Amino acid sequence: MDDRDFLKIAIEQGAKSLAEGGVPVGAAIAVDGTLLAAGHNRRVQQGSVIRHGETDALENAGRQHASVYARATMYTTLSPCDMCTGAILLYKIPRVVIGENRTFLGNEALLRERGVEVIVLDDPECKALMDEFIRRYPDVWNEDIGEE
Amino acid sequence: MDDRDFLKIAIEQGAKSLAEGGVPVGAAIAVDGTLLAAGHNRRVQQGSVIRHGETDALENAGRQHASVYARATMYTTLSPCDMCTGAILLYKIPRVVIGENRTFLGNEALLRERGVEVIVLDDPECKALMDEFIRRYPDVWNEDIGEE
Repeated sequence: MDDRDFLKIAIEQGAKSLAEGGVPVGAAIAVDGTLLAAGHNRRVQQGSVIRHGETDALENAGRQHASVYARATMYTTLSPCDMCTGAILLYKIPRVVIGENRTFLGNEALLRERGVEVIVLDDPECKALMDEFIRRYPDVWNEDIGEE
Repeated sequence: MDDRDFLKIAIEQGAKSLAEGGVPVGAAIAVDGTLLAAGHNRRVQQGSVIRHGETDALENAGRQHASVYARATMYTTLSPCDMCTGAILLYKIPRVVIGENRTFLGNEALLRERGVEVIVLDDPECKALMDEFIRRYPDVWNEDIGEE
């Protein structure tokens, strides 16, 4: 499986969340070319303020040794917010593949500054998910990124 | 209630976690001088990799409007790691009171750089909790901060 295949898993997670009325950000974590875990934002579904796509995938992966994270790639449909950027840095995940960063630009600069390889695929399907959500639920989206 | 009173609530959370065999980092969030929520690390208790003291308190507070976070202070027994730093920045919490930063120094520099007021109380009780935990469970502690 290659980067596009794993991003597709993240997109499926985002689309599942959108179908549930939730924030359509999905993520997947691959280690040694194999899927470790996937997840999606759960603000609407579980009232969670810390389960974004990336953190939900990390939580679903469970407790892992640093040597596992060191071989991981985080796939996410959307540019990682400050919290998810911090989670990636905490666990020293060395590579992040981002679906798109046009609807929201997270802290990619900090990831790069700390030595993380950041790849932005500029995927139209990822952008379409976000465009639809922001149009339908602008208040929930603002809440999810800490904006008024 | 003043800063010391809210830090005491965070310490009680950390002590509760230690009594459960867990990472003894606790946190409390105050808004307008009133307790909004408290929490503690749940790596051992729930197998969680994203529920640190600060993020657990945020999760326990539930969904909040940006105007609530804008009036909040985060109290934490230990200097916030990269993930918790990012969560504080995401929700634009303007003030963080830290019990101690001798056993672990998080990204206080980034908080300050982004305009967050950071106060370190250098509390011996917070340090004693961490010293005991790191002595008894060094492997769990390293796992919690993404180290080998």
